[in-house]
Amino acid sequence: MSRPLRLGLAGLGTVGTGVVRIVQGRAGLLAARAGRAIEIAAVSARRRDRDRGVDLSGYGWEDDPVALAARDDVDVVVELVGGDAGPAKDLVEAAIAHGKDVVTANKAMLALHGQDLAEAAEARGVVLRFEAAVAGGIPCVKALTEGLAGNRIERVMGVMNGTCNYILTRMDSAGLPYDTVFAEAKSLGYLEADPTLDVGGIDAGHKLALLAAIAYGTRVDFGGVALEGIERVSIEDIRRAGDMGFRVKLLGVAQMTGRGLDMRMSPCLVPAGSPLGQLDGATNMVLLEGDAVGRIVLRGAGAGQGPTASAVLSDIVDIARGMRLSTFGQPAASLKTATRASAGTPSPYYLRMDLQDKPGALAKIAACLGDEGISIDRMRQYDHATGTAPVLVVTHRASRPALDRAVEAMAGTGVLVGDPVALRIEEIAD
Amino acid sequence: MSRPLRLGLAGLGTVGTGVVRIVQGRAGLLAARAGRAIEIAAVSARRRDRDRGVDLSGYGWEDDPVALAARDDVDVVVELVGGDAGPAKDLVEAAIAHGKDVVTANKAMLALHGQDLAEAAEARGVVLRFEAAVAGGIPCVKALTEGLAGNRIERVMGVMNGTCNYILTRMDSAGLPYDTVFAEAKSLGYLEADPTLDVGGIDAGHKLALLAAIAYGTRVDFGGVALEGIERVSIEDIRRAGDMGFRVKLLGVAQMTGRGLDMRMSPCLVPAGSPLGQLDGATNMVLLEGDAVGRIVLRGAGAGQGPTASAVLSDIVDIARGMRLSTFGQPAASLKTATRASAGTPSPYYLRMDLQDKPGALAKIAACLGDEGISIDRMRQYDHATGTAPVLVVTHRASRPALDRAVEAMAGTGVLVGDPVALRIEEIAD
Repeated sequence: MSRPLRLGLAGLGTVGTGVVRIVQGRAGLLAARAGRAIEIAAVSARRRDRDRGVDLSGYGWEDDPVALAARDDVDVVVELVGGDAGPAKDLVEAAIAHGKDVVTANKAMLALHGQDLAEAAEARGVVLRFEAAVAGGIPCVKALTEGLAGNRIERVMGVMNGTCNYILTRMDSAGLPYDTVFAEAKSLGYLEADPTLDVGGIDAGHKLALLAAIAYGTRVDFGGVALEGIERVSIEDIRRAGDMGFRVKLLGVAQMTGRGLDMRMSPCLVPAGSPLGQLDGATNMVLLEGDAVGRIVLRGAGAGQGPTASAVLSDIVDIARGMRLSTFGQPAASLKTATRASAGTPSPYYLRMDLQDKPGALAKIAACLGDEGISIDRMRQYDHATGTAPVLVVTHRASRPALDRAVEAMAGTGVLVGDPVALRIEEIAD
Repeated sequence: MSRPLRLGLAGLGTVGTGVVRIVQGRAGLLAARAGRAIEIAAVSARRRDRDRGVDLSGYGWEDDPVALAARDDVDVVVELVGGDAGPAKDLVEAAIAHGKDVVTANKAMLALHGQDLAEAAEARGVVLRFEAAVAGGIPCVKALTEGLAGNRIERVMGVMNGTCNYILTRMDSAGLPYDTVFAEAKSLGYLEADPTLDVGGIDAGHKLALLAAIAYGTRVDFGGVALEGIERVSIEDIRRAGDMGFRVKLLGVAQMTGRGLDMRMSPCLVPAGSPLGQLDGATNMVLLEGDAVGRIVLRGAGAGQGPTASAVLSDIVDIARGMRLSTFGQPAASLKTATRASAGTPSPYYLRMDLQDKPGALAKIAACLGDEGISIDRMRQYDHATGTAPVLVVTHRASRPALDRAVEAMAGTGVLVGDPVALRIEEIAD
């Protein structure tokens, strides 16, 4: 058996403590699988005296995480500090400079600085891996980078923020409005300190940008993700969508189109009977579509101590086994700058609006759609007692710009009460 | 870029032709990802003159697949001949002896000879990989061996024979008896030449034995899989199970218990609303439960040209990238011989029987269960007009031997008409 692989672990929060637990509690199993012992040499965290329920007495301690990078007794730096810059990035850069391999769970850092860090790692001959950064315990980075390496990837989709999926499914099942469930999620500790990272789709958008880079061999382009959060999803839309056989999910989609790379993270309607539609609670799901393999669906816990630590260990065991894979599955210098798709991929849309209850109102709305070449698949008008008529429309496939023009024209008809809601319907064949 | 990786491809059926298509059609993509070109140097098949719709003119040809192993222009032998012995095994042994890496889709060969072949490969310093042998395009071997390497695996489950799942779901949706759907599947070409490989659970049992070896670090023990096919599953049971909120699946389960390794491939009831219960048609699903990660669900096509070729390419790209992983995730010599669990894991059971329509019949049946310490969760008696009363029982958790004794005792009461049907209910928490 080779000499042990020695870790320098920065960050002893939930995930870091989880990594310590596995390294301590599963030492024999890890050594058998990795072909060598996996040991922690040194750790770093903000407070040394905090009781984390694990014994750290045998490890070196660094007040400054960056100091882990320079230690001779560290082979791999495990960065679990978080934050897109600051100490996390300083540590990773220092580790690379010192010739250490790096394992990180830091989606924000990689979504914003992944190209530079990957190039630096490759120039220095070290590996930089990030399984835990995307969809927690689901080994989706590995599945995409390695398992589907023989495929031209056609679409990557995912529900990758458990908090948003919790909020949406809780609104649905309990019939509660967004604000109530948001407050509930907050009191349960489900939300990031800055909740817009979750409900604004930013966190999930980071993850999508990382998967897209692997899928399409392109430089990570978080700025190219069209972001729309769940803050404006109403219980009304969840109910109406349900009536039409759909469920609302914060869905990330990345597709290479003839007009460039289309990446979006937005509330979408998906068929209620599909695996995505049936995904409840904080669970994550990643769907990978390849030209050879068809569709692979991966489902599991997207966060939490055990699942995220499991993903961190996957990267660590890979390194212990001698696997030296490029960060994004091919040399960073060979990644191309993707053209951003201007118009996005056409799809059906769900439209909900309130109309004034007077003759010809519906015809005017229908004409606005027809003028933009958008045909109607289904339309429903609901009972009403208040003088306004709630109307739902499911369109056939349309481009978003055409839809936006149609909605603008509707505003000019004078029959609308308030603004229409438009949600994309992501097409997922059985 | 390093020199090309050169393949010797044996077997040009559906999967072999699919591999040729990908290597030819995705050459640039593969080279970018693998860091080197992937080329086919030579091929072998039974008939040279058959038109397979791909151009083989640039490749060497061997009438005898085993001759591929000796060619100097071959780095990796890709074995897609099939069969647990004969030319497939001869080729793999020869390839190992000649120091060639091996990629195979051959579940039968590995389930029966995997230990010897893995030991031989390691002794010779070559790798022997088999992603395509289990669940087609789903990268489940990789997910288990690498993605979940930090977990003690608690249970491995899978629907891994698409033909059986097609038959069971078609019986369900069309209300057709087994024999009719079996004949239909046969005429559609869904069945192996020897259909008992499919419907007898043997093919799926091979796959389960391979996953269990990785999961538990044990020597492959196909003989230790308790096999029960779907031949005796009736439309009556599918309907009755449906009434109780279950669906019938040919489900493989491998668990390490206090009494040894429990492996079974048998028709089981699963909750209709669970991912397994909702799995229709020829799709496969693998569920991996780890102590850290919780449950990971993987779903995709379990067979077919593209999906299986995709899995073969995954192994090939791994090798091109320089990954040298043990066949079962740890050195073959370190795999332990598993004790076979004698009694299996207790579970609830579904029992269906016809009773003579006379007073006290139900009480006698209930007493037989009670005498074995088996308590009843739910019981239903259906309408009847024929003098016999159909009765369904869902028990609380019971051991199979206790259940078998109870059923034997029922036969002695004289109130049964025909034999009871007993099906395991696999417990899958949400």
